[in-house]
Parts: sequence; structure tokens; C-alpha cells
Amino acid sequence: MTTQKLVAQIRKKKSFLCIGLDVDIDKIPSHLLKEEDPIFSFNKAIIDATHQFCVAYKPNTAFYEAYGLKGWQSLEKTIRYLNENYPEIFTIADAKRGDIGNTSTMYAKAFFEDLAFDAVTVAPYMGKDSVEPFLTFKDKHTIMLALTSNEGAFDFQTKKINEKEVYKHVLETSKEWKNSENLMYVVGATKAAYFKEIRKIVPNSFLLVPGVGAQGGNLTDVCKYGLTENIGLLINSSRGIIYASKETDFATKAALKAKELQLQMQALT
Amino acid sequence: MTTQKLVAQIRKKKSFLCIGLDVDIDKIPSHLLKEEDPIFSFNKAIIDATHQFCVAYKPNTAFYEAYGLKGWQSLEKTIRYLNENYPEIFTIADAKRGDIGNTSTMYAKAFFEDLAFDAVTVAPYMGKDSVEPFLTFKDKHTIMLALTSNEGAFDFQTKKINEKEVYKHVLETSKEWKNSENLMYVVGATKAAYFKEIRKIVPNSFLLVPGVGAQGGNLTDVCKYGLTENIGLLINSSRGIIYASKETDFATKAALKAKELQLQMQALT
Repeated sequence: MTTQKLVAQIRKKKSFLCIGLDVDIDKIPSHLLKEEDPIFSFNKAIIDATHQFCVAYKPNTAFYEAYGLKGWQSLEKTIRYLNENYPEIFTIADAKRGDIGNTSTMYAKAFFEDLAFDAVTVAPYMGKDSVEPFLTFKDKHTIMLALTSNEGAFDFQTKKINEKEVYKHVLETSKEWKNSENLMYVVGATKAAYFKEIRKIVPNSFLLVPGVGAQGGNLTDVCKYGLTENIGLLINSSRGIIYASKETDFATKAALKAKELQLQMQALT
Repeated sequence: MTTQKLVAQIRKKKSFLCIGLDVDIDKIPSHLLKEEDPIFSFNKAIIDATHQFCVAYKPNTAFYEAYGLKGWQSLEKTIRYLNENYPEIFTIADAKRGDIGNTSTMYAKAFFEDLAFDAVTVAPYMGKDSVEPFLTFKDKHTIMLALTSNEGAFDFQTKKINEKEVYKHVLETSKEWKNSENLMYVVGATKAAYFKEIRKIVPNSFLLVPGVGAQGGNLTDVCKYGLTENIGLLINSSRGIIYASKETDFATKAALKAKELQLQMQALT
């Protein structure tokens, strides 16, 4: 999907909400456990109920890999269902991959070609030749970790190289890479104070922002410094939406939570 | 597997060779393509022919994910075959994962419990709480990227924070983490000159060393500074062994290449 199409969808829905499909079988309503593929059934119901309030879905691959072959099958069914029924939706494989060149090419093929996601998250530690293979895919987006929402972000990301934090080096360096226009960045909502500085380095790039809700990030603060002319933000919420209820009304309750966030977004733009 | 068992196997076989199973369907002998699962058939033949010369196998998950569900199935069959037939072999999922705490727990379950690997590679960028969930698993090993074998290692890993390179901070910081005795580290063979410094920080830890062979690293140089009393090295070779021939003799040729490296290792210790 082109960035233009993503922006058009954001304007139409007055939403820049991304819903994280981090599905833990121990947390889904028990009546779904008798279904053939409980995780896919859960995702399908969540997607059908919430799609008008969001512009993107982001399955986290860990939650599927944990169930082995069955889990990978649920992931495949979920992305195929999205692509067939809601082709306007932006899809992100939250995989945080990254390896030497020929291996990154294989990961890119896995997520962009085989599963046909629009975007994949990657880790920057191995540098340029571990990320550039992802960037060669036309109308596909590579979302690189910059400043993450967790406590461990302070271990290395905020340490200074020549008076400048590691995450700023990551942002600046990556702008020089080939096809860097296909880059987006992960910046945690729990680090709202940092958005002003980040926007000086990447004034127009889309930022994927996890950490609103369960992790304690504040939407107003993020928007204050993060919004661009083209919105430039995808705000992710996972647990706060998909686990709004453990009863048979889980999808309706998830839709209410998603609508709540969509209305806040509408008010802030 | 305990570290003691790994060391005992190394002493018995006089080898610290790890064979990378990075299987690209375009590079395997064409007669295998008519098999039901060509990738598993290739792995099985390579394993049966080479296991006496090596102590570990390391499938790179990217090469399996690229083929979707079928690929994941080949990975599952490969690790089950290893665990059933060669339980003394140390198995590494080269996955380079890492995410916030609850997600890293899911990845750890995927590789340590569902697939029953002995070890998994992880990326350090997200810090302590992204790695510690892996470290809680008893007799399982978490192999963290420190200094990688590729060109992009110079983008961030060798940059200096307070006069000290990022990869050294990664090594030092990780020693303070809970259950850090379950850590091993990835250090590329192409950076042999750095091993002396690295051994000052982690004198006894096992290092997984990719980059010998196709990537140009030199075994003698690595051993000179990297060896410990308990060997402390796992030298990985992938393409140089598994693609030694594209004909029906591929497994025999792979065994010859593996034996060649084993003999070099025997001479160096």
C-alpha cells in the first residue's frame, strides 16, 4: 500500500488507530476454545467489529509462533482474511526481525510476499545491510525500532554517542540508506517528551506508537509533538481493546474501546 | 542442555563446529525437489552425514518462514529429527528475536518449549526486560548479538558511548541481568581482532562465531584470542558446508568440508 492510500484512509475514518492482535489463548473468551481455530475466530470477530474505527492491524508474530504450526496457520488465516475483506486496511507484521543481508531478504519475502503484509517491524542493531533488503520492496514499509516503550529502552537507546543519544543516531543514519522513503519508526508513547526532538530529525516520517493504554502512554502528549501535516502517526493499542471483555460480548466491547480512541483522535486533529 | 554437557561433547568429538542450516530451495540439489518436503530431506541427509564432526546445528528461521506454513513445518520436522536421533547435539534457533517482556516470553515459549531448541539468538536493542524473559528457562541458552559479522556492525555497534564501544556496553550491562549465566554472545569471525578485548569482559562465556568461510573470517585468528579453558567457542559455518556440492553427492561433500574444519579445530586446541 502507498503512503498516500494510508493517509487517505486516515482522513476518511478520522482515525490513526492501529489495533494490536497479540492474541494469548489464555486471555480469550472461553466459549471460543471449542472452535477449530480459536485464535483466528477471535481475530475475525475483533476485526469485523472494529475495522471502521481503525486504519491498521498489527499481529505480533511471537503470539502466533508460541503455538507452533497451528499458530503460524492462525497468522496466515488472519492476514488473508484482512487482505480479502478489508483491502484498505494497512497491515503490520510486528516481527522485529533483522539479520545479515541474504537472511533479511528471506524475512522480507516471508512477510511482504508470502504473507502479503504492508509493513514489518525490524531491529536496527545490525545496521544498514540488515535493513536495506527490506527497503527494496515497492509500496512496502519497514518500521524500524528507534525508541521503544519499555524500561529497557534506557539500557542502550538513550545512552549518548558523541553527545547524541543512540536512538537519534539510528534515526539520522537510516535517512541515508537506499530507499529510506520506505522507512517508518517505532517510538513508544511512554516517551512522549522525546517526540519534539524526534520530529526535528524525521519531520515527516510515520511513527508507529505503542504503549498507549496498558503501558501508560498518553495520547494527548504524543499528538502534541508527534502530529504532522499528513498525521504521521499510527497509535497502537492491543490489550486495552482486544481484552475489553472476556465474555461473549468481547467484540462489541472491543469496538466501544476502539471507538473511544477514534473519537479522541478526531478531537485532537 | 547444560553447558557441561556441551563441553563434554566438544571434548569427545574434538570439535566446536556448528553447522548452519540456512536452506534455500534454489540452492539445494535438484533431485530433492521431487521429495514431499525437499528442505527437510536436505537437512536430514546433511545431519546424518555430518553429525560426527560437529556439536551443534543452527537453523536460521528466516529461511523457513520465507516458505510460510510449509517452511515452518520443515523447521519443526528438522528440530524433532535432531532431538529424537541426536539428543547429544546442541540446537540453536537463529531467530534474532527480542521484544517487550510479555512478548519475549512468548518467543521463549515458541523456541524453548514448543520447538524444544537448546538455544535461541536474540537482539539487545530493547535492553534488559526484552532479554531476561529468555534467561528464566533452566538449561536453555540465550545467545545475544554483541558484535556481528556484517558491514553494518560499524553503523552502531562499534560507535563509542563514553569512550567505550556500544557492543562492549552490551556485554558489560548484560552481565548484571538476572540469570546471566544463561547468556552466550554472537561475535563475528570477521572481527577477529576484537576477540582479545571481548575476552576481558566475558572471559568464560561461550561465543557463537559466524562468518568463517563465505563471509571471510579466519579460524586461526579467532581461536588465538577466543579460546577458553572450556573451549568457549562455537564456530558456525553454513554455506561453505551445506552447499559444498549441488549434485547427488551433496551430503558426502558436506561431510568432507565439516571434517576439514573439525581437523583444523583439533589442531588448534
